[in-house]
Amino acid sequence: MTEYNAPSNIAKPGGVIGILGGGQLARMLAMAAAQIGHKTHIFCPDARCPAADVCATITNAPYTDEAALRQFAKTVDVVTYEFENVPAETVSFLTECGAIVRPGARALEKAQDRLHEKDFLNQIGVATAAYHGVDDLHSLEAGLAKVGRPAILKTRRLGYDGKGQTTLTDSDQDLPGAYDKAIQFAWDEVGAAPSILEGFVPFQCEISIIGARSADGDIRLYDPVENVHRSGILKTSTVPTAITEATAQKAAAIASSILSALDYVGVIGVEFFVLSNGELIVNEFAPRVHNSGHWTSDACAISQFEQHIRAVAGWPLGDPARHSDAVMENLIGSEAAAWQSLAAEPNACLHLYGKSEARPDRKMGHVTRIS
Amino acid sequence: MTEYNAPSNIAKPGGVIGILGGGQLARMLAMAAAQIGHKTHIFCPDARCPAADVCATITNAPYTDEAALRQFAKTVDVVTYEFENVPAETVSFLTECGAIVRPGARALEKAQDRLHEKDFLNQIGVATAAYHGVDDLHSLEAGLAKVGRPAILKTRRLGYDGKGQTTLTDSDQDLPGAYDKAIQFAWDEVGAAPSILEGFVPFQCEISIIGARSADGDIRLYDPVENVHRSGILKTSTVPTAITEATAQKAAAIASSILSALDYVGVIGVEFFVLSNGELIVNEFAPRVHNSGHWTSDACAISQFEQHIRAVAGWPLGDPARHSDAVMENLIGSEAAAWQSLAAEPNACLHLYGKSEARPDRKMGHVTRIS
Repeated sequence: MTEYNAPSNIAKPGGVIGILGGGQLARMLAMAAAQIGHKTHIFCPDARCPAADVCATITNAPYTDEAALRQFAKTVDVVTYEFENVPAETVSFLTECGAIVRPGARALEKAQDRLHEKDFLNQIGVATAAYHGVDDLHSLEAGLAKVGRPAILKTRRLGYDGKGQTTLTDSDQDLPGAYDKAIQFAWDEVGAAPSILEGFVPFQCEISIIGARSADGDIRLYDPVENVHRSGILKTSTVPTAITEATAQKAAAIASSILSALDYVGVIGVEFFVLSNGELIVNEFAPRVHNSGHWTSDACAISQFEQHIRAVAGWPLGDPARHSDAVMENLIGSEAAAWQSLAAEPNACLHLYGKSEARPDRKMGHVTRIS
Repeated sequence: MTEYNAPSNIAKPGGVIGILGGGQLARMLAMAAAQIGHKTHIFCPDARCPAADVCATITNAPYTDEAALRQFAKTVDVVTYEFENVPAETVSFLTECGAIVRPGARALEKAQDRLHEKDFLNQIGVATAAYHGVDDLHSLEAGLAKVGRPAILKTRRLGYDGKGQTTLTDSDQDLPGAYDKAIQFAWDEVGAAPSILEGFVPFQCEISIIGARSADGDIRLYDPVENVHRSGILKTSTVPTAITEATAQKAAAIASSILSALDYVGVIGVEFFVLSNGELIVNEFAPRVHNSGHWTSDACAISQFEQHIRAVAGWPLGDPARHSDAVMENLIGSEAAAWQSLAAEPNACLHLYGKSEARPDRKMGHVTRIS
């Protein structure tokens, strides 16, 4: 057996992992933590959140409630989060209270702002779409001149699942007045909020890599998966992909360089566009466990959820090797109503998040078909 | 997709599974239930039990507390249990309160009493060791005359992990007075409680089969595993085994006949002795998820825990096919202290039960090595 030099700030079995957020990612993190002997303390404003069913302790309070955060910090060995839009003030307050928050403020700051994220990626030599910061109609016009059309205008902050973004096509630019109108419309669509204009990437496919970095700098990456989106929401992740070994190696090298540059601790999801020449463009990264990594629960010895808990707890990372091929399919809105037939399918691993109301576009569960 | 005709008494996703007992089996059942969208309500006298960390609700009360049981019955869609020694009165009271308890009273009654268990097995044509009911020194002597020596005297009720049993060898029967002394000693060892004397089975190896039967009579069996015990406690379970296909088929047929004869709903663990001629003797069965089925969490699409929850909830059973070979090793007492090196082992799936105190002989966790 390998000896492992554990960092000092470690959650031993029986330790408490604090998680900000209580959605399905927190739910699956909590179960993974319990599998290796940890207790979880969920901090979430919503008492009926999915993670409430599987945690040892839950605090229901706003993320701005300093008294509740101070108490939370006292009870946990380490804090992590399930969503990148946790307020920066929450993280800095917890840190002031003496809590270790992983992944740290640096990763969060980059991931929360699409402009900072793109700047960071380009600074470390990672290719992205052409982009331009947009603060008003004037900079939007300048951006269009720079990145061309079609282009996508996205709010810098708080976007997810295709929300807070709009596309500017070139279909109407020759009509009199249409150009100004389209620009005004797009600017209204993003709520006149600080935004980023991104050039269109003619990609062949979308892939992602789920990677992890431990407190002592060890990096482990899962196999890349191919992702298909529907209405801006991930629909399927398939592994293995059809990309070449060379492209896969490039993607792995990029994911590793992002993890190192951020001095990252935990699991990250890095999304790529693959061009027809095999070149890679990073779309974005998420400083947390990622929907496109759900297949790891069923096709790997160590899931992304356990891997994340291991990393933030200061444990050695697990082997990300894959024992099966897998296709993960999200069950969105009413799709989860088919649970009975899904449950009867051979080699289908069904995961339901315990959400009572199946609103349209709501992720209700997923199914991983392994072979 | 296959259409499935669900029985009416079903726990839909979001339903509540009541579990009597809060140990590691309940903990793993609760996580499996949550994976497919259920909430769990644990009923356990011990507030700090392992399952407390992962359930939606817990009632801490004695199993004889009728008010607490009545309230528990109101909140759940179905009741199951993690240990066969749940008092029969508890189950009958819950049933009176309108609760559905699975597996039912019949399986529990047979499994709680080693004499009834052996009688039942022989009645349905399943071979067991020679045995004799023992109520006093006189019937113990009669039993010895019938089953020979060496023989094992076991209490009929409440034995587990080799507790409540003692061996009568033939080493000292020629010494003057030693025979009477040895008999008296054995009788004292079992606390002069109603017991069963079992003949010694010269087995080549021990195997078990984890099987499941759904509410509509569908039966699914996992591959047989070979078990090695140490000091009466399961140490390892290995799959595949070295037994022949013919022996495996015989074991499967026996497990199926037990499930059917008990009109069973849920997961059962059936333990066999394999003789050198390939013949099988059933040692005992446990009407619950079983330690020798823990490997299914890591080597199958559907674990024994999910399979049990599916069965008791009235869901279709899952495919018990195995995607990997596996060796499950129990971590007993201080063995779990090696968690850091175990966590660093490739292809080792570590499970820790969150127990704070590592007493000798206490099951603290297990590790499944897959290949």
